[in-house]
Amino acid sequence: MKVLCLDLEGVLVPEIWHGIARATGIETLKKTTRDIPVYEDLMRLRLDTIERHAVTMETIRRTIDGLDPFPGADAFLAWARRRFQVAILSDTFYEFAMPLMAKLGFPLLLCHRLVVEDDRIVGYRLRQEQAKAASVRAFQSLGYEVVAVGDSYNDIDMLRAADRACFFRAPDRIADAHGDIPRFETYDELMCAL
Amino acid sequence: MKVLCLDLEGVLVPEIWHGIARATGIETLKKTTRDIPVYEDLMRLRLDTIERHAVTMETIRRTIDGLDPFPGADAFLAWARRRFQVAILSDTFYEFAMPLMAKLGFPLLLCHRLVVEDDRIVGYRLRQEQAKAASVRAFQSLGYEVVAVGDSYNDIDMLRAADRACFFRAPDRIADAHGDIPRFETYDELMCAL
Repeated sequence: MKVLCLDLEGVLVPEIWHGIARATGIETLKKTTRDIPVYEDLMRLRLDTIERHAVTMETIRRTIDGLDPFPGADAFLAWARRRFQVAILSDTFYEFAMPLMAKLGFPLLLCHRLVVEDDRIVGYRLRQEQAKAASVRAFQSLGYEVVAVGDSYNDIDMLRAADRACFFRAPDRIADAHGDIPRFETYDELMCAL
Repeated sequence: MKVLCLDLEGVLVPEIWHGIARATGIETLKKTTRDIPVYEDLMRLRLDTIERHAVTMETIRRTIDGLDPFPGADAFLAWARRRFQVAILSDTFYEFAMPLMAKLGFPLLLCHRLVVEDDRIVGYRLRQEQAKAASVRAFQSLGYEVVAVGDSYNDIDMLRAADRACFFRAPDRIADAHGDIPRFETYDELMCAL
């Protein structure tokens, strides 16, 4: 029995901040870890932007309620949960992700927390530094081989820490920079590889 | 967000070896960690017994397919998964537990493996020593507070390692020996306490 560590956004569900960008019409919020590799820089930009545009948590919540997992993600996850112990390792926040977790049947999710005051996001609390890689190493310390699947800059440490790694729908510039990690574009390909 | 670590047998599902004892009519297989505190002693007795009675893996598999989670376990787990990240920590084996996991919607399960040859269980592989307590500490190392629920001797280390602990339907002699750990008898009580 192996542990399968899956990134969330870009692998199972759309980028949540893209959804917020579309719903609010704020272009800046389309930036992701694919564009800005340092997570703290990206989050500062996001929080400054939503503060400037006075976007409430309620608006964001309604937007996220309207998001759905990618077509095929549910079937892929059902397949994976019969063969692996599945953990979703994400740099998103429980406040954002839980409605999507409900749609995916509540797999284990290890991510971060937001600080919300008076319906405004005023900050965030990273669970720990390099949380994804630390989670991989924690499962390894429990005697598990870990297979990891990600798509972006913030997944590289996780992919490098894992016993086996795959890119899923990674942008060329990220996948090309790590040419030793195999890349897949469809859930069918991924299932064959796993 | 906290991690809720739940024992499996006695908390969510019946004792699997009890089911095997009933199906095969072998009384000795009714012994559990509640009767024999040292897990290795218990497992040696079980494996010797099924070898002596020539019980096949196929017989055991059919028996387990017929087991169901406790009434209310599914609703309790659905409640828990909306409020916690849930991990099942068990000293059972994936070969036994996966049909029951399917009935519970595949929560994360950390347990052990059997060694099966020619349809006979010839051994078992503990993932690590004190696997339940090690799993609690692994989640704590990732920045989570851990709440643990168990019922038996092999849960004590897990309950002691956790930030908060409850007994669920524990025998008096175990609960009384650890009187500082609150005990509950129904899922409703447990939900109120959690």
